[in-house]
Amino acid sequence: MEGDLAHIGAGLAAIGSGAAAIGVGNVAGNFLAGALRNPSAAGAQTATLFIGIAFAEALGIFAFLVSLLLMFAV
Amino acid sequence: MEGDLAHIGAGLAAIGSGAAAIGVGNVAGNFLAGALRNPSAAGAQTATLFIGIAFAEALGIFAFLVSLLLMFAV
Amino acid sequence: MEGDLAHIGAGLAAIGSGAAAIGVGNVAGNFLAGALRNPSAAGAQTATLFIGIAFAEALGIFAFLVSLLLMFAV
Repeated sequence: MEGDLAHIGAGLAAIGSGAAAIGVGNVAGNFLAGALRNPSAAGAQTATLFIGIAFAEALGIFAFLVSLLLMFAV
Repeated sequence: MEGDLAHIGAGLAAIGSGAAAIGVGNVAGNFLAGALRNPSAAGAQTATLFIGIAFAEALGIFAFLVSLLLMFAV
Repeated sequence: MEGDLAHIGAGLAAIGSGAAAIGVGNVAGNFLAGALRNPSAAGAQTATLFIGIAFAEALGIFAFLVSLLLMFAV
């Protein structure tokens, strides 16, 4: 048995990256559901859509960053 | 017992890749639900559909990238 | 105790392949719910259905690919 336990941690962190995509999908999915129900209001909420995506995506990128740090910097 | 601990990490990272598909499915599913309810508004939201898919898919591809790095680069 | 740690990783990666099916099911399920409510609009959304399935399925196939690589290529 060889290898570094940090590599198991890197794989676990990547699960967090994928889990964040569930949040991103929830934001974009609900925007689409609402925008298709009331298209005239969609333009005014586009900024909110990107704010929601950005905050959820950031957490996934943090998890990806932890993966990279565990593989190459620790 | 043989093998490299990084291979366990690669398998864990692949879970993250699959989890991101839940987010992608949420985006596309809500678009379809709305577009079939109000087909005339669907064209205007196609760009938002692909933006949502792209952000969710990116996190899944990050997790897949971690898998590949753990198998072949670490 | 014998065996290769990569085989644990291959099994874990298969979880990701299964998780992606939740996303694919969400896309197809929402299409069916909408198409049965408004059958006349279903034809115009068939392309979107396959786009959504393809993006979600791709992430599951990536996880399956990681499984195969861990079993036969690493």
